[in-house]
Amino acid sequence: MDDQEGVLLRRAIRLACENVSAGGGPFGAVVAKRGRVLAEGANRVVPDADPTAHAEVVAIRAAARALGTHDLSGAVLYASCEPCPMCLAAAWWARIGRIVFAATRADAAAAGFDDAAIYEEVAAPLSARRLPIVQALPEAAAEPFRLWAQKADRVPY
Amino acid sequence: MDDQEGVLLRRAIRLACENVSAGGGPFGAVVAKRGRVLAEGANRVVPDADPTAHAEVVAIRAAARALGTHDLSGAVLYASCEPCPMCLAAAWWARIGRIVFAATRADAAAAGFDDAAIYEEVAAPLSARRLPIVQALPEAAAEPFRLWAQKADRVPY
Repeated sequence: MDDQEGVLLRRAIRLACENVSAGGGPFGAVVAKRGRVLAEGANRVVPDADPTAHAEVVAIRAAARALGTHDLSGAVLYASCEPCPMCLAAAWWARIGRIVFAATRADAAAAGFDDAAIYEEVAAPLSARRLPIVQALPEAAAEPFRLWAQKADRVPY
Repeated sequence: MDDQEGVLLRRAIRLACENVSAGGGPFGAVVAKRGRVLAEGANRVVPDADPTAHAEVVAIRAAARALGTHDLSGAVLYASCEPCPMCLAAAWWARIGRIVFAATRADAAAAGFDDAAIYEEVAAPLSARRLPIVQALPEAAAEPFRLWAQKADRVPY
């Protein structure tokens, strides 16, 4: 990490600090591309009543909005803390090219934000999940994909 | 799954079908609590330029907005397809109580939506990730958590 990246990561940490005063969680994130900041985010789960409003998701959504595309190829995500599985997968879907974080998941767990169970959950087979999950109506499941395959102007992502 | 749940899952599948015509991806979701629909969602990644706008995330966010809280305890998520790791983790953070889906992740992969790499990514140690991820500035990482611990009126989630 060079000096410019250090500035961006410190900015994510400062957003996390400021967000605590503003009633949000202690997490901040910045999305940048070629050194230029595209968007910032801070954890707004409780104040915005949005369970998905983690700092990284907020920043990724805002960066995509700013560029007018869901494809953030070449962008870097700077996060005050290691992203949870939701945020990691969001970065993946957004085609973020690299992630730099400060606090570890162990640091987060010590502060009361424990992602370990979610990492285990995602890796577990369906039959061993803590959040019960079942398949049903397999005979009806194919229709959306059939329509999608037929659609000539579909945009894969 | 009883008949009422069948109706809700079929509704999620119908949303997925309608969404293809509307320019979105072939995925739909419904969040319900005690049989009452709280919110619906469909995949709007491309039309909304939002990489996180999977049907489940859209429905979860809308359900939380409808209830005015990030806590969807006791709610059930009906999804036309098995949730990806992002959506599964979003359901976890929202405290969704149960998930019912129709198409499997294998069905989705056959249709061009392959989540397998993300499941592997979340389970891999940082050093083996395909999306490069590094820690930096560990000496600056603790400050947000220190402020959080000092905040008397913090709301854990």
